[in-house]
Amino acid sequence: MKLEEKTISSQMIHKGKVVNLRVDSVELPNGNFSTREVVEHSGAVAVVPVTSSGEVIMVRQYRHPVGKILLEIPAGKLDPGESPDECVKRELLEETGMVAGRLKKLFSCYSSPGFSDEILHIYLADELYYQGQQLDEDEFVQVKKVPLKEAVTKICSGEIEDAKSIAGILAAVNNLC
Amino acid sequence: MKLEEKTISSQMIHKGKVVNLRVDSVELPNGNFSTREVVEHSGAVAVVPVTSSGEVIMVRQYRHPVGKILLEIPAGKLDPGESPDECVKRELLEETGMVAGRLKKLFSCYSSPGFSDEILHIYLADELYYQGQQLDEDEFVQVKKVPLKEAVTKICSGEIEDAKSIAGILAAVNNLC
Repeated sequence: MKLEEKTISSQMIHKGKVVNLRVDSVELPNGNFSTREVVEHSGAVAVVPVTSSGEVIMVRQYRHPVGKILLEIPAGKLDPGESPDECVKRELLEETGMVAGRLKKLFSCYSSPGFSDEILHIYLADELYYQGQQLDEDEFVQVKKVPLKEAVTKICSGEIEDAKSIAGILAAVNNLC
Repeated sequence: MKLEEKTISSQMIHKGKVVNLRVDSVELPNGNFSTREVVEHSGAVAVVPVTSSGEVIMVRQYRHPVGKILLEIPAGKLDPGESPDECVKRELLEETGMVAGRLKKLFSCYSSPGFSDEILHIYLADELYYQGQQLDEDEFVQVKKVPLKEAVTKICSGEIEDAKSIAGILAAVNNLC
């Protein structure tokens, strides 16, 4: 079965701060035509930082799109020209103040491939030492340490509701990848 | 530390088929002002269907935003007024032809809370029996059964790159929730 679609034309609707939105016309495998909305994103990293006593260093932050404070693993967008390896060190330091003696890439994944090209590079960090949180003036993030096993419980209880955090924590707790 | 932001104003940029885009002005906890792009989505379900022989029934489909075929767990958007429980039965049947004797909610999560309100309700399904795939004329989906342990390997090897599939498979393989 042929699955691929062919792009016929593309219209940029919005060029924004974090995302762009374009609407493409595509030809389907059966020759019919349809439109696809694409939210363009520069990509991001996220990291599961695990302390020597088995705690995950997480961050609480207000997420305007969902209108509430979420408990997440540290994460952030790639700067232009920045590699995921550089970005993850920067974000870990900025948000939690930690430097990782060891940093391991777990996997990369698409957050919402039905409507966005956002790719997330997920890491595991350990052998951590504290150097000092470096938040921007307009960044509001609260660090919270959660024992790894308790983090797993918080996924089922609904206290951790962020998809990348769930995927990263479950990969870390299983010593995957 | 105060983390919440206050919405000052809101401008709808695009009302679309799958997503809307609006740009909000917000007041930050320190009194400064900023803007937030919000991709509105109606929410979706996804399901890890596990056969009696321990295989996950997955689907291969072309994802235009990322320009390639992804291997994912069955999933789909909530229809207006539809409950997640109804939606997951419908999507499982349409995409794979399967009906689940048992259906268990694992967790709900936000796919990209930095820029979207999309919420995903993730289920586990078993005691499956075949009734017949019911794809729309313009839907192109290929079913692929993957042993659960092999699915875990495919996360690390990069063959499974969809965040909701990774989270759901890792929860299922660990008998979580």
